[in-house]
Amino acid sequence: MVSTFQRIEHIGIAVNDIDSAEILYSKILNSKPYKREEVESQGVLTSFFQVGDNKIELLQAMSLESPISSFISQKGEGIHHIAYLVSDISREMNRLSKSGFSLIDEKPLKGADNMWVAFLHPKTTGGTLIELCQPIPLK
Amino acid sequence: MVSTFQRIEHIGIAVNDIDSAEILYSKILNSKPYKREEVESQGVLTSFFQVGDNKIELLQAMSLESPISSFISQKGEGIHHIAYLVSDISREMNRLSKSGFSLIDEKPLKGADNMWVAFLHPKTTGGTLIELCQPIPLK
Repeated sequence: MVSTFQRIEHIGIAVNDIDSAEILYSKILNSKPYKREEVESQGVLTSFFQVGDNKIELLQAMSLESPISSFISQKGEGIHHIAYLVSDISREMNRLSKSGFSLIDEKPLKGADNMWVAFLHPKTTGGTLIELCQPIPLK
Repeated sequence: MVSTFQRIEHIGIAVNDIDSAEILYSKILNSKPYKREEVESQGVLTSFFQVGDNKIELLQAMSLESPISSFISQKGEGIHHIAYLVSDISREMNRLSKSGFSLIDEKPLKGADNMWVAFLHPKTTGGTLIELCQPIPLK
């Protein structure tokens, strides 16, 4: 039985300081980040590394109201979320909502790296923040 | 610059009860687990889901001495580690050790799903438990 999720798109890692985290992850992954991007909808500054078909997304809060600030104050730096690539984000949101999962966003938001994104609340997923993402078609 | 890590091999998720977690993840991933396996070296019972080329590994402690027991008692259920596929685990362990990272294991251990595995201590990786894994060649 094949999952309707296509693969892990990225793993989000909450960090205090993106400059030092980029240096750390460049050493771990033996690689360099390929982009930095601010995501206003989430109040974060991101930095991306490519690892095969998957990505690592470093996340630094841009304000104390950012979800990354509250995450780090509660749990410390570390893995923040798993993002899965899907081919039809609205269909998956509908499927999961009907299965009893709590969606943080009612509609897809514009996320980092040219993606429509939506989050499932960790209260209904056994403690894991799950993001769905679907590439925004180029015009 | 291409990472010497080939891709995310799996994400490990710490769970209290693997039976109910399998039901939960079957709903989330719209899929079924393809195997269960006990890993004595880590004191865990595992269950694996395939998502494209990546996997989700559910981890239930088999005793109170298991690292999963202490993880859940400290942080609750949720994402436990990121595992990266590498082509030469000894070379990567050597590279990371020379770069100042703390290895939990001096030599690769036999992990789940026919893999040689080694862990980097989260104290030197910004709070994230990182596993390296390399398939054990079939005889």
